[in-house]
Amino acid sequence: MLLQFHPWASAVEAPFWQVLTQRKMDVFKLDDSPKPVMGYYSTGQQVKIPGKDTTVALPARLCLGPPAFPDNDPNVSSGYSPDVLNRFLLITFADLKKFKFYYWFAFPALVAAPAWSSDAMQDVSQQFSTAQVDSLRGHLEQYRQIYPSSQHGFFLIKQHDLTVARLQDWDTFYAGCNDDQIIVAFADPSSLDSHPGWPLRNLLALLQFRWKRTNVRVFCLREVPGKSDISFSKIFTATLEEYAPVTEIPKAVGWEKNAQGKLGPRLADLAPLMDPIRLADTAVDLNLKLMRWRVLPGLQLEKVQGTRCLLLGAGTLGCYVARSLLGWGVRNITFLDSAKVSFSNPVRQPLFDFVDCLEGGKDKAATAAANLRRVYPGVIATGISMSIPMPGHPVSAQGYEAAQKDVARLEQLFDEHDAIFLLMDSRESRWLPTVLGAKKKKIVINAALGFDTFLVMRHGVGQDKETSYGTGSPLGCYFCNDVVAPTDSLSDRTLDQQCTVTRPGLSAIASAMAVEMLVSLLHHSSGIRAPADRADTDDQGATAEENALETSTLGLLPHQIRGFLSRFKNLLISGQAYDRCTACSDSILEAYDSEGFAFLLKVFQDAKYLEDVTGLTRMKEESENLDMDWDESNDDEMFSDDD
Amino acid sequence: MLLQFHPWASAVEAPFWQVLTQRKMDVFKLDDSPKPVMGYYSTGQQVKIPGKDTTVALPARLCLGPPAFPDNDPNVSSGYSPDVLNRFLLITFADLKKFKFYYWFAFPALVAAPAWSSDAMQDVSQQFSTAQVDSLRGHLEQYRQIYPSSQHGFFLIKQHDLTVARLQDWDTFYAGCNDDQIIVAFADPSSLDSHPGWPLRNLLALLQFRWKRTNVRVFCLREVPGKSDISFSKIFTATLEEYAPVTEIPKAVGWEKNAQGKLGPRLADLAPLMDPIRLADTAVDLNLKLMRWRVLPGLQLEKVQGTRCLLLGAGTLGCYVARSLLGWGVRNITFLDSAKVSFSNPVRQPLFDFVDCLEGGKDKAATAAANLRRVYPGVIATGISMSIPMPGHPVSAQGYEAAQKDVARLEQLFDEHDAIFLLMDSRESRWLPTVLGAKKKKIVINAALGFDTFLVMRHGVGQDKETSYGTGSPLGCYFCNDVVAPTDSLSDRTLDQQCTVTRPGLSAIASAMAVEMLVSLLHHSSGIRAPADRADTDDQGATAEENALETSTLGLLPHQIRGFLSRFKNLLISGQAYDRCTACSDSILEAYDSEGFAFLLKVFQDAKYLEDVTGLTRMKEESENLDMDWDESNDDEMFSDDD
Repeated sequence: MLLQFHPWASAVEAPFWQVLTQRKMDVFKLDDSPKPVMGYYSTGQQVKIPGKDTTVALPARLCLGPPAFPDNDPNVSSGYSPDVLNRFLLITFADLKKFKFYYWFAFPALVAAPAWSSDAMQDVSQQFSTAQVDSLRGHLEQYRQIYPSSQHGFFLIKQHDLTVARLQDWDTFYAGCNDDQIIVAFADPSSLDSHPGWPLRNLLALLQFRWKRTNVRVFCLREVPGKSDISFSKIFTATLEEYAPVTEIPKAVGWEKNAQGKLGPRLADLAPLMDPIRLADTAVDLNLKLMRWRVLPGLQLEKVQGTRCLLLGAGTLGCYVARSLLGWGVRNITFLDSAKVSFSNPVRQPLFDFVDCLEGGKDKAATAAANLRRVYPGVIATGISMSIPMPGHPVSAQGYEAAQKDVARLEQLFDEHDAIFLLMDSRESRWLPTVLGAKKKKIVINAALGFDTFLVMRHGVGQDKETSYGTGSPLGCYFCNDVVAPTDSLSDRTLDQQCTVTRPGLSAIASAMAVEMLVSLLHHSSGIRAPADRADTDDQGATAEENALETSTLGLLPHQIRGFLSRFKNLLISGQAYDRCTACSDSILEAYDSEGFAFLLKVFQDAKYLEDVTGLTRMKEESENLDMDWDESNDDEMFSDDD
Repeated sequence: MLLQFHPWASAVEAPFWQVLTQRKMDVFKLDDSPKPVMGYYSTGQQVKIPGKDTTVALPARLCLGPPAFPDNDPNVSSGYSPDVLNRFLLITFADLKKFKFYYWFAFPALVAAPAWSSDAMQDVSQQFSTAQVDSLRGHLEQYRQIYPSSQHGFFLIKQHDLTVARLQDWDTFYAGCNDDQIIVAFADPSSLDSHPGWPLRNLLALLQFRWKRTNVRVFCLREVPGKSDISFSKIFTATLEEYAPVTEIPKAVGWEKNAQGKLGPRLADLAPLMDPIRLADTAVDLNLKLMRWRVLPGLQLEKVQGTRCLLLGAGTLGCYVARSLLGWGVRNITFLDSAKVSFSNPVRQPLFDFVDCLEGGKDKAATAAANLRRVYPGVIATGISMSIPMPGHPVSAQGYEAAQKDVARLEQLFDEHDAIFLLMDSRESRWLPTVLGAKKKKIVINAALGFDTFLVMRHGVGQDKETSYGTGSPLGCYFCNDVVAPTDSLSDRTLDQQCTVTRPGLSAIASAMAVEMLVSLLHHSSGIRAPADRADTDDQGATAEENALETSTLGLLPHQIRGFLSRFKNLLISGQAYDRCTACSDSILEAYDSEGFAFLLKVFQDAKYLEDVTGLTRMKEESENLDMDWDESNDDEMFSDDD
């Protein structure tokens, strides 16, 4: 009777795939070299069908669970470890974006030529008495206590005393024994009455090759798990018709068939089992990590993701900035805006829909936050409907308390965030946030649009005496170039001044640049105090090599980017902090420190007060006395603001 | 009894505001100079209350309807036209984004000092017999037939024969008459029994100033509209206590009070009356037109809006391109993509939400189109789930028919669109669209992303022998730099190769640039055959002045923009069409022309066939024989493709 074997059936537990996913994301990354993986199996089991007197044979399952990845390479193949007889191969492709796992097992087994045949399998009770079985069980328990589990799969039994030994001890164990004393044993996953399990194949090959056996009694160890009961075990004799010396590596078989009974991979689709929000988390995380694995090992994704961002303005710039932040994995985004969504907004502001404009329009800030969560539920997005008190926009007696509250709320928001984006629709609304940014030394990124030009800049941290710069002077803010205080530009604006007139592509470009500038800044060792990099092609001094000494992991970190869409060109510019600046100079910060809201109130009532405090008024008077031309131009012409 | 007047009540019909909106958008634009506007009024009416025997006096309404804007300035104030006595002023601010109209009427009337007094008003029947009334009515009808309507508001009546004449004919009409013959008449909007209407004020001022009257009989013409019945008219005598010569311009009154009874503007909020979709249309249109009015009179918005755009790929690039097109007012956008929305998409692809990923993900193309319509219902957006046959991706016997269908569908789509964007995730999928673009001479805009670099380019139109270029040679396509055919780069890709690894801000920038390049091209007189502009700072030859001779209204129109986010820098590059190009060369187009689908099939089966057809194979062999190094690098390293 030709000896046939009960083949393995792979059984991968869902948690295995989850552990594999974690390993891939956090440990293996792009490494696609083979990894050790451990499976386990139980010896052949039959299950009683409830209420009936029959049993059903379970498949011979090779199981992979969460502990399948050994922390250290166990190096299982050293020496005579019989583990080598029981090796398997798992080829798997984890589509982590979709949580689909393609896999294919191989249980390599050497093919004997000619094939082994066998007599009929017998129950252990047919060949051994109860006392003998008890004795064998005792020896086996002892054996298992002495030797590690790698020796448990295969072992030797001596017929006359039923003692047990390791395969590698063959020569000493059977020394002086006749052949009839030899019983080779293996932990048999098969539960079939007529066939042993697959692991026996390689054991027989070993017997043939190493000990030149053509005839051997085989003990198929089968147990009820958890019970010390080996009475389900089987015994039979395997025979080779004639001895054929093994001269070359025999053929091997053992690829597992898939559910369709064909040679091909199986698919485990875990997506339906998973919380879709966790699926999205993993997929988004993966996309970001791929950047680190594949291109930039120095990428500090966690730092970017942990940066809490406050977006002042939820218009075209605010919406596009939020989308780019989301792309970078930023989890904490707060919008501040006082307007409602109007009908002209959605086509240019990518967080609003037509429906948001109906019935007078929803609050922009809250709607932007809600729609951001609709894109990605993992984001913590908040919308605050509030306007920012502005120089030259007087506060009435009734409005006093509200203005004071607004300032306090804004201070609190600055404390609660790490990076503040200035994305609003007027020059003067940027003043108070600029002051607060300098006072609290927060990252401030500023973006403003013209018709086909844009400005993206990071603010310096005021005069910042704490740090000495290589270049000598700290970087300026949005107001450092001006000698006039920002004042009311909003009242009595005509139709065309009410909305920003810009080429529609411009805000997407400026917003993305603003976010990329933030991310570059976060990757610079000097952070908010990083000096300004300039393009290597300009003639302003530093060469590319000098710049390279202190750049961000992501490249140049300029102070200001001025973009010109009509030439598809950007200019990198840097500007120093101005000691008479109406927003970030010492005199302003000191006045606010000492007088608090009372100081702001004076500014709100009359913006010219800023020029008095900073000394601009006196300077202008002096220069007027000198009868010089005074150029009052500022960049308003070129860079208007967002709606 | 002091003479008092029934004041005007303005009555603006909703269609007037619609006509005003059209005029503002299409004619006035930014012009804020005064415009002539015509109102109308009916003579005093009383309305019978149904079922009761009393009547109610209607307000004296000055009405503005759609014909309020005369096509030619009627120049109503010339000569003695009595229109000048009945002028009104309308100050209005149309908030076209919200469809709110603020307006304030003035009905200027000169104040008499001292004031006029009057006796009690009498019905016309108390002073005239029925025969006299009939006679007056007859004369009046005649008068109205002879003189234009500008003379109908005020006229003269002679007591003895009840003939009628113009104001300006006073001296001849009343020549030789006693003062008791004089009756001045006006079309009286008042319906009150005791008070004449407002127009009388300026008539009395005229009588006092010009004819020095201190006593005059006044005929208040009141009619039932449509009926020749003047029996509701009133007569009374107005008297000045003493004659006071008018030496300076008298004070004037007449600002209308608002609904709150205060001097201030009224508000007509038409938004609730309007179809929100039309509101959105107008608001979006306005935003675009403001660009033309304010910055660029040469802006061809209609040309841009009418450009039908086919987006091959609905990933990060496709979504951002669609949003920028929407911002430009493009109304016809078709997406083509074969993928489903996956969990990693929404945070980077701004037309998808979390919910689109559930249950295996929706079709990307259809979902992008649906969500675009959700943003702006006025867009005609279509999604086609289809993959593009590719070189080196063999078509099986069963797939033959489907592939042939796909090619036919793609050809049809090219015919149906004006501009094609190549925004897909592999090099080889761009091949067939490049061929079709060259064959059909369509605008092809191509965008591809690296980690922190991007390429945006417009394709030339193949070898394009029809046109002779100033620079001598036509522009190249995406494949013109290569000497290897595009082939299967998709099969067996690992995890990191399956999705584009790019800095998240990059796709927004590249997409917006791609759209702006299209718009610039549409504004170039040579359109698709425009030569390549280069930046004025480069040393490649042409100066800014030379370039300026033939640029787009919107600025430079380069051939290729290569962007480097690590330096926040763009490089403008131009490349010639290559006569052995595997996509746009004559040999390829001719092979496709003559063999049709059979040619494509050979290419799909084996991309190398392209190298045979174009002569690249022979060229390589020859150069190999020369033992030269052959550089097979292409820009794949630098620019991968979008997912």
